[in-house]
Amino acid sequence: MHLKNPVDRLKAAVRDVADFPKPGVGFKDITPALADGQLFHDCIAWLAGRHKAGSVDAVAGIDARGFILAGAVAHRLGVGFVPIRKKGKLPWKTECVSYELEYGTAEIEIHRDALQKGRNVLVVDDVLATGGTALAACKLVERIGGNVVGVDFLMGLSFLHGLQKLVSYNTYVLAEY
Amino acid sequence: MHLKNPVDRLKAAVRDVADFPKPGVGFKDITPALADGQLFHDCIAWLAGRHKAGSVDAVAGIDARGFILAGAVAHRLGVGFVPIRKKGKLPWKTECVSYELEYGTAEIEIHRDALQKGRNVLVVDDVLATGGTALAACKLVERIGGNVVGVDFLMGLSFLHGLQKLVSYNTYVLAEY
Repeated sequence: MHLKNPVDRLKAAVRDVADFPKPGVGFKDITPALADGQLFHDCIAWLAGRHKAGSVDAVAGIDARGFILAGAVAHRLGVGFVPIRKKGKLPWKTECVSYELEYGTAEIEIHRDALQKGRNVLVVDDVLATGGTALAACKLVERIGGNVVGVDFLMGLSFLHGLQKLVSYNTYVLAEY
Repeated sequence: MHLKNPVDRLKAAVRDVADFPKPGVGFKDITPALADGQLFHDCIAWLAGRHKAGSVDAVAGIDARGFILAGAVAHRLGVGFVPIRKKGKLPWKTECVSYELEYGTAEIEIHRDALQKGRNVLVVDDVLATGGTALAACKLVERIGGNVVGVDFLMGLSFLHGLQKLVSYNTYVLAEY
């Protein structure tokens, strides 16, 4: 694949929104980047292109924005997609992991039968913040017998030090802030 | 593209879950179909393959499961992705449409600047039930100046007559139940 790293175009497209979801918080809005067909295409191709054919058996995506990217990466790699969802959304038997948020805790789930044992799983999400959600997602994959071979993000907020939570994984962040 | 219609494999993979999300309701669980890499790939290729190159400018996906399919279809078509989300999730200025659920109402939103005027938009969701959500999604696309050129679903529950709500659109359902 001959593709130039799309990071500069990605950073130019991301929109800063003040006071979302609450006062004092600055939000990185990726929707203008998704809406740009060439840019969206190139970001997916770039993320998928990091992984050799055969090295990934499934892509796990995190509810809800992570689904947009993870579904596309799974399609491009020609592998299956596994949803990791907020508690109560998955209809079958699940494993559940709790993790800390800035205020309070959250829980995410995976179907117990989502993967065959030993499958190589790439976890994909849109934004790396504190890393709590991504770490919980990795634990879920491992709990059902999967092997986390990578944790990839479209962008990361480095001032929140999320990569420190994920030091035992092969992480990648396309656009660092 | 030479691809056999994947409907039989899709129907064989979908799992019936009783009493979800509440007692008496039968739920069609698509996650086993998504987890099958070849099947997921072929379903996306089939949905995208219905549309001629250049006939779709953007794919709109509906929060949250619709994102999985719509993101992949957008990538395959090489066009932009526009999220339609539950109220309060989008950070920028939005348009909002209310619609009736079996019990009560729901609201979904789109960013006002998500599309340039006159853009041809394909709406993609996972399951067509009553059609209320999909119709609201079409209205949102139109309200910001988009032209709905198709409304595609992975599967549909024909006993709920959702297509009747969408008669003015070019609809497609891969697997009818």
